[in-house]
Amino acid sequence: MATTIQDIAKHAGVSSATVSRVINTSGYVGSETRRKVENAIRELNYAPNKHAQLLRTGETKNFGIVSTQFNETAVPRINSFIAAAHSAGYTTTLFITNGDQRREREAFDLLRAKELDGIFLIYRANDWEVLEKYLEDGPIVTLHNVDTPGIPSVFIDHYEGNQLALSYAWDTGCRRILNVYGTPTGLNTTRRIEAYLDFCASKDVESYPSDPFLRIFSADDVEHVVDWIEGQSPRPDAVIAHSDNIAALLVSRLQKRGFNIPEDLSIIGFDNLFVSEVMDMTTVDYGIEEQGRNACRSLLKQLGKASEGLTPLTFRLIKRGTTKDS
Amino acid sequence: MATTIQDIAKHAGVSSATVSRVINTSGYVGSETRRKVENAIRELNYAPNKHAQLLRTGETKNFGIVSTQFNETAVPRINSFIAAAHSAGYTTTLFITNGDQRREREAFDLLRAKELDGIFLIYRANDWEVLEKYLEDGPIVTLHNVDTPGIPSVFIDHYEGNQLALSYAWDTGCRRILNVYGTPTGLNTTRRIEAYLDFCASKDVESYPSDPFLRIFSADDVEHVVDWIEGQSPRPDAVIAHSDNIAALLVSRLQKRGFNIPEDLSIIGFDNLFVSEVMDMTTVDYGIEEQGRNACRSLLKQLGKASEGLTPLTFRLIKRGTTKDS
Repeated sequence: MATTIQDIAKHAGVSSATVSRVINTSGYVGSETRRKVENAIRELNYAPNKHAQLLRTGETKNFGIVSTQFNETAVPRINSFIAAAHSAGYTTTLFITNGDQRREREAFDLLRAKELDGIFLIYRANDWEVLEKYLEDGPIVTLHNVDTPGIPSVFIDHYEGNQLALSYAWDTGCRRILNVYGTPTGLNTTRRIEAYLDFCASKDVESYPSDPFLRIFSADDVEHVVDWIEGQSPRPDAVIAHSDNIAALLVSRLQKRGFNIPEDLSIIGFDNLFVSEVMDMTTVDYGIEEQGRNACRSLLKQLGKASEGLTPLTFRLIKRGTTKDS
Repeated sequence: MATTIQDIAKHAGVSSATVSRVINTSGYVGSETRRKVENAIRELNYAPNKHAQLLRTGETKNFGIVSTQFNETAVPRINSFIAAAHSAGYTTTLFITNGDQRREREAFDLLRAKELDGIFLIYRANDWEVLEKYLEDGPIVTLHNVDTPGIPSVFIDHYEGNQLALSYAWDTGCRRILNVYGTPTGLNTTRRIEAYLDFCASKDVESYPSDPFLRIFSADDVEHVVDWIEGQSPRPDAVIAHSDNIAALLVSRLQKRGFNIPEDLSIIGFDNLFVSEVMDMTTVDYGIEEQGRNACRSLLKQLGKASEGLTPLTFRLIKRGTTKDS
């Protein structure tokens, strides 16, 4: 027979209310008492029942993060979401769908079944129209803007971020600036391209085409870009990459071929990841950890559990060793 | 009323068996038919019911990964697990517990409730005695060896890995080799320290103490190590770090203070992470992706779904630019 809170209380020699406080990590419990209860939980092999909790409170105190994939860029964003959720008494479950549409719908079904209290959607496999229907089941916050008005997102417009990188390259003397991009279907890419074309027009310089520099993700993709750079005359004098991982590969491959960075060519990355710090690379920071915290705060707000607004995200150029001095 | 497979079949003009094949991604379905079924699923907002699937097959085709935290090192390990599970028709749910024992038990309760078919346990919050009881509920594979005989793990003994790094440092002329370590409670650290002490004894050289070089995780921790190195006379001529992230921080901080790597000091990392490749750092590789795949294969084997054995993990020194030539 299943162990109950009453069994734990009896075993630990405390009241049920105390056991409840320990289990729900709410209210004060002395450390000695807490230890007694935790020992009793262990000894009786007790597992608090999510369904019982759901019936009692209408919530499971569990958020979901849904994404098609994850990589080094996702680590600070997800970790800060998990930490913020943890402080608010929520756990987080991650669903990495590998692009599987059915798997993604299953995660959203848990919102419908109230096994999740909210979802942070990073990269999606289904059309938004499919997922939109789940809005009636609980709060959703997205990484990127979607077409439904009123859906909160922690989107930050990369037009401005790319402008910042372009201006800095220009101010440090670069005149042939190349942008390399990620997925062409993403809004980040669209906005970066717009910023690039507007910038080149405003300075009255020729722009490089975008198409050959879309979908730059792997070391091989970067090798091709470097091949192309070597074949140009005159060569580009700056490259702005859509992520620090790509910027790191560019620095590594260009140096192997004898390029001096930044004398021959400046490199600017995006995201201010760990790799940019240890490689002393100039990068555009936009508070990727704050983005994760904002996502959590947005879900809490929609649930009426937080009143504070989201921290506005702003772009900030971090000047390091892969660009010349202004 | 809930949409059923029969509703989908009617809407798509195909048989229920065909719908079932599409949903379970099993058996051949022509691409045109598949598209029809997928459209119907979308239009009717159908969500296949895990519980119905469970009742039908006794399994939910979902694995769990449980860990107290995750960082850049976890990315290749987890991604390769997810990819292997995906090829076998399994989805993966990640539970990052933040060290919360209750949260960890809740994840294991899902194994008991058959909502998970198996668990890959990376870093745990509860004592093993607490989690051991869940072995009767389904297969568990652990990253590190545990005391229960017969529990599969994808553990690889870091004694040998550290030996490899120590021998290479020695062979390239280093005589004052410092090891820095992670968590002292982990078996990896214990075994690395044993290898270090045995090595120093076998070469009849003095060893540095271990205690001041435990729990080296952050940039600040690394600054302290670098302070200490600067204060020594003679200084160490090699540092072996327990992870490439720490090795990267060492290279970055030592270079900032004017050290030439490897002329003044060799650096060897562990894990062969992305950062070691772009920073051209010597590292000890042990197939971290293979470890993730092995974990998945071990669960499948225990479920009788795979017959092949696990790929043996072996250490391999990857010689790059942060060590001298042998």
